Amino acid sequence: MYMSKMFVPTLRESPNDAEIASHKLMIRAGLVRNLVSGVYNYLPLGIRVLEKIKTIIREELDKKSAQEILCSALQPKELWEESGRWSDYGQEMIRLKDRNDREFCLGPTHEEIFTNIVKKEITSYRQLPINLYQIQSKYRDERRPRFGLLRTREFIMKDAYSFDKDELGLDKSYKDMYDAYSKVFDRCELDWKAVLADTGAVGGTGSHQFMAISEVGESDILYCMECNYAADREKADFMLDKTSAGEQQNPYEKIYTPNNTTIEEISNLLGEPYYKFAKSLVFKVKDKIILALIRGDREVNIIKLCNAIGTIEEYVQMATEEDIRRIGSEPGYIGPVGLKNVEILVDRELEYLKNFYTGGNEKDYHLKNVNYGRDFTGKIVELANASAGDKCPKCGKPMKMEKGIEVGQVFKLGTKYSKPMECNYLDENGASKPMVMGCYGIGVTRTLSAIIEQHHDENGIVWPISVAPYHVIIVPVNVKDETQFNKAKEIYEMLKQNGIEVILDDRDERAGVKFKDADLIGIPMRITVGKKIGEEIVEFKRRKEGSIEEIYIDSVLMHVKKCVSQ
Amino acid sequence: MYMSKMFVPTLRESPNDAEIASHKLMIRAGLVRNLVSGVYNYLPLGIRVLEKIKTIIREELDKKSAQEILCSALQPKELWEESGRWSDYGQEMIRLKDRNDREFCLGPTHEEIFTNIVKKEITSYRQLPINLYQIQSKYRDERRPRFGLLRTREFIMKDAYSFDKDELGLDKSYKDMYDAYSKVFDRCELDWKAVLADTGAVGGTGSHQFMAISEVGESDILYCMECNYAADREKADFMLDKTSAGEQQNPYEKIYTPNNTTIEEISNLLGEPYYKFAKSLVFKVKDKIILALIRGDREVNIIKLCNAIGTIEEYVQMATEEDIRRIGSEPGYIGPVGLKNVEILVDRELEYLKNFYTGGNEKDYHLKNVNYGRDFTGKIVELANASAGDKCPKCGKPMKMEKGIEVGQVFKLGTKYSKPMECNYLDENGASKPMVMGCYGIGVTRTLSAIIEQHHDENGIVWPISVAPYHVIIVPVNVKDETQFNKAKEIYEMLKQNGIEVILDDRDERAGVKFKDADLIGIPMRITVGKKIGEEIVEFKRRKEGSIEEIYIDSVLMHVKKCVSQ
Repeated sequence: MYMSKMFVPTLRESPNDAEIASHKLMIRAGLVRNLVSGVYNYLPLGIRVLEKIKTIIREELDKKSAQEILCSALQPKELWEESGRWSDYGQEMIRLKDRNDREFCLGPTHEEIFTNIVKKEITSYRQLPINLYQIQSKYRDERRPRFGLLRTREFIMKDAYSFDKDELGLDKSYKDMYDAYSKVFDRCELDWKAVLADTGAVGGTGSHQFMAISEVGESDILYCMECNYAADREKADFMLDKTSAGEQQNPYEKIYTPNNTTIEEISNLLGEPYYKFAKSLVFKVKDKIILALIRGDREVNIIKLCNAIGTIEEYVQMATEEDIRRIGSEPGYIGPVGLKNVEILVDRELEYLKNFYTGGNEKDYHLKNVNYGRDFTGKIVELANASAGDKCPKCGKPMKMEKGIEVGQVFKLGTKYSKPMECNYLDENGASKPMVMGCYGIGVTRTLSAIIEQHHDENGIVWPISVAPYHVIIVPVNVKDETQFNKAKEIYEMLKQNGIEVILDDRDERAGVKFKDADLIGIPMRITVGKKIGEEIVEFKRRKEGSIEEIYIDSVLMHVKKCVSQ
Repeated sequence: MYMSKMFVPTLRESPNDAEIASHKLMIRAGLVRNLVSGVYNYLPLGIRVLEKIKTIIREELDKKSAQEILCSALQPKELWEESGRWSDYGQEMIRLKDRNDREFCLGPTHEEIFTNIVKKEITSYRQLPINLYQIQSKYRDERRPRFGLLRTREFIMKDAYSFDKDELGLDKSYKDMYDAYSKVFDRCELDWKAVLADTGAVGGTGSHQFMAISEVGESDILYCMECNYAADREKADFMLDKTSAGEQQNPYEKIYTPNNTTIEEISNLLGEPYYKFAKSLVFKVKDKIILALIRGDREVNIIKLCNAIGTIEEYVQMATEEDIRRIGSEPGYIGPVGLKNVEILVDRELEYLKNFYTGGNEKDYHLKNVNYGRDFTGKIVELANASAGDKCPKCGKPMKMEKGIEVGQVFKLGTKYSKPMECNYLDENGASKPMVMGCYGIGVTRTLSAIIEQHHDENGIVWPISVAPYHVIIVPVNVKDETQFNKAKEIYEMLKQNGIEVILDDRDERAGVKFKDADLIGIPMRITVGKKIGEEIVEFKRRKEGSIEEIYIDSVLMHVKKCVSQ
C-alpha cells in the first residue's frame, strides 16, 4: 500500500501512562489506541500483526485436528450456575441484564459454553476425542488494567477445549496442544519457557504456563539449569530445609522484647537469623480468621494459601488490629501458642524446624524454643513461595528466577466441568461416563505485546518476519525526483506481484523522517531508492541486523525472498 | 478433512421453532446451534462459510482502499452522550456498569467510536479521504429475536466509515462502497436489489439498502420495471392520486351511521369506495396525542410518521379508548373536525382529495363532504405506505412489490456525527471544518442466511462455490472395501495437493446416509467411489444441477477445477 493512504498515526512521544516498551511502541507506531482504561482499538498495522499471529495459531492447531468454532460472548447465568462458578467468579466478571431482566455475563472464559455444546451433540465413545477452539474477544473487569495490552478488560484469546474418553486420552490431547503451543511461540520467535502452573479458578489436575521471558512480566518463574524443572512461582515447589530436624526440643521460654515487633527488629535484638523465627500472618476470609505461620525468611504465597483453604484470592483480606485482638493476640506479637477461635495453617517446613521464636500474643513478649506439635498444633500445608537459590525439588540444585509474560496456559481439567454439567458419553459397554476434558488458552493480544517486548531497540519495533505487518518498505529519498519515484513504483509492483507484502512510502517528507518511521514501525526490510538509481543501485537495509548494503535492482527480489523464507 | 473427525452434527428433523428454510437448514446441517433466544454458536462448517464471506468483503473493500481496524465492543457512555444518542437509543441497547460503576454499552453500531478515533488522529485535508472498516460482533437486544440468524441479539457485522472533506468527496466514497457492495453480493451469488432507504436512527441525508430478494424477508421493496426506481417501503414514494383535486367543495353534512365503525362497514353501508374516506388513527407519543389522517385505502407508515414528528418507533403507541375520549372524540367515530388538544397530521394526498367522509367524533355519526383547509387544518406530511400498483414517483408506471432480506446498507451521514463530536480538519486555507461522513454496513451472518434462503432445495443447502465450506466431498460407497477406500484416499490427497478443499467421508455408514448428509451440507461436488473403481471410473455429481456422470479418475482434477473456477 502507499504510505500516504495508510492510517498509521506514528508519534514521536510516548503517552505518559505507558511504562513498558511494548505499550509505548504500540502507541508510537500506530498499532493501537486506548479508548478507556483497559480497552483498546486496533489500527491497521495492529490488525495485520494480529491476523498473522492468528494464522500461525490456526495452522498449528489444525495440524492437531482441532476444529475452529465461534461462541457468543453473551453467556446466560444458568450455565455458570450448573458449573457452580456464577457466585465464585468475583468482580472480574462483567454481568448484565437483558430487556427481560434475564442475567448474562460477558464471557471471561468459555468452559461452560463448550461443555454445553459438546454435551448436546456428542453421545458415543466413537465420536471422541474431539478438540474445538475459537479466537474471540474475552471480557474481564480487571481491578487495575495496565501495561498496554498485557492486562486489559477486553482482549483477544484463542481458547480450545478437548474432550476425551479417559485420562489416557486427555494426556494425548494435552501433549498435542503442548506441542502445538511450542510451535506457535517458536514461529512467533519468542524466547519462552513452559512451566508448571497452578490451575487457579479454572481448576483441574495439572497445568503448564507458556512464559515469554521478559523483565516486565508479571510472573516469576523458578527453574533449574540442571534438570530443567521449571514452574510458575505460584506453583513452584522446592526442597525443604530440614537442617535442624534432628535437634532436641528445648523447654520454651517467654522473652521480653519491648517495642521490637518486626522480624528485622527482633532478629537484630536477639542476634538470630530470620530462619530461626516463625512469622505469623493473620488473614480474614469471609469472616473467618486464619493465622498463617511460615519461616521468618519466607513469604506467604497467596495462591497456595487459597488452595489450602479452598477459596479464591478475591476473598482473602489482611485482618485488622481489631480482628487480631479479638482472637486474643496483640498486633506485632502474634504467635500460634494458646490462640483460640482461629484456624492455624502451618507451612510444612516448620514441621522440621526446631526451637524457633514466635510472637507471645502479649505486648512486648516473644516466645523462644517453640516447637510444632508440642506447643501448638495446626494444619500442615504448603504456604511458602519458592525463591531464587532454593533447591530444585527434583534434583536439589539451586534454582534461578526470571520474570515472564504469560502468553499461554494448558490445563488438564479432568471431570471438573463434565461431572456437574453432565457432559457424558456411552462407552464401549453402554455405560455412561463423564468426558475427560482439557482446556488451552493463548492470549493473542498478549502475544503481540510479548513479541514487541522481546523484539525492539531504541529506534522502534523489530518485527520477526513471521508476524511483520509488511515485509518490505520502499523509500524513495525524493518523491519529486521522477526517476527515483518511478523506479520505486516499479520495484513496488514487482514485489507485490511476487507475493511480497510491501509499503511504498510516497510521502513528500524528508528522507530522515521516513527512515525514522520505517524503523519505528519495524518493517524487516527497507529498500531506499536514491541518487544511485541511475546505476540501477538501491540500498537494502535489514532492520534487525541494521546492516545496509548497496545492491542492484535485479537482485532485489532474491534478497527479499531469502529474508522472507528464513 | 476426514468426516469421522469432523464436528458436523447433522439432524434429520428441524427444530420446532424454525420457521424459515435457512434457520432449519443451518441447524440441520450443523452450521450453528442456538444458545439462548437470539444468541448463536457457530460450528466448524458455519465458521468456514463465514470466513469465506469475510474474505470476499475484505477483498472488495481493500480494492477501494478501505483499511481494516478493530474496535472494542465495550463503548463508554460519554461518547454516546457527545453524539446525543445515549438517551435516544432505547431498550435495544445493552447497557452495563463496570466495577467502578462507570456506564458502558455493548456496541450496537460504531459511529461514535470511529468518529472519535479519526477526530484524534486526522487533522489536515491532506490526510483525507479515509475509509476505515471492521468485522466484529454487534449487540442489539431485539424485542423479538427470530428467523435464525436474520434477527439476533449478537451478530457479526462489517461496518465501514468514510471521512471526506466535502459532499463531493462523500459522493465518491459512497459510490465506491456502493460498487464494492454490489461486487460482494454478486460474488456471494445473491439475487439482490439496491433500494432507496430511510436513514432511521443512524441519521444522515441519504441511504440505500441492499436487499436479497426472498419471500421470508422482513422488508417490502417497491420497484419500477420501467425506470429502475426501487425503494424500501419505509422510504418509497409514489405519485399522488389527484383525480378529485378539481372538484367543487360541497357543504358538509352529518350522517347517521349506527354501529358502523370500520372502514369496511361504513363503505358497505354507504356504497362508497375506501378511497372516498379519510381514516383517523390516534397515537400516543410520550404523553402527546397525535391524530394521523390518511386515505381509507392506505396504511400509515410508522417510519414516515416518526420522521414527521421527529421521534423513533419505540416511543410510538396506539392511543387507548380513554385517550380518545379525552380529546373529545368517540372510538370508532374519530375524525379531524372540531378536535382539541391533539396534533393533527394530514397525509399529503388528502390535500388533493375533495368531499371525503370522516368520523363525526360522536357516537353513531360520520361526516360527509369534509374538505381539508375548510373544515379542519393540520400539518401536511407524508404518512402513507406505497403499495404494489401505486405509480412510480419517477415515471408514473405502476410499481411492483417484493420482499427482501436487508443484507447491507449505506448511508450518507454528512456532518451528523462530526459536528457534535467536533471531528474537524483544517482545509487548504487553514479553516476548521467538520468532516463529511458516510457509513456502510453488511450483516455478515445475515448474508449467510440470505445465501441459504436463495440456494437450497428439498434435500438441503446448495452452496455457491464461492462460499462453500468445502468444494468436494468424496464418498467411498463401502469403506470396508480396501480398493474403494484406498482409491478414495488417493483422490483426496491429490485434490488437497492441488489446493482443493475436500472432505473424505470415511464413516462406516450406508452409502444412502452419506449421500443424504452430502446433500444436506450442500457441498458443490460429490465424488462417489464405488464398484466401477476397478475400471478407474468414479461418479461425479454436481449438487446444484443434480447431474451425475461417470468419469475416469484421471479427469477428476480437470472436472473439479472447471467447477471451482466458474
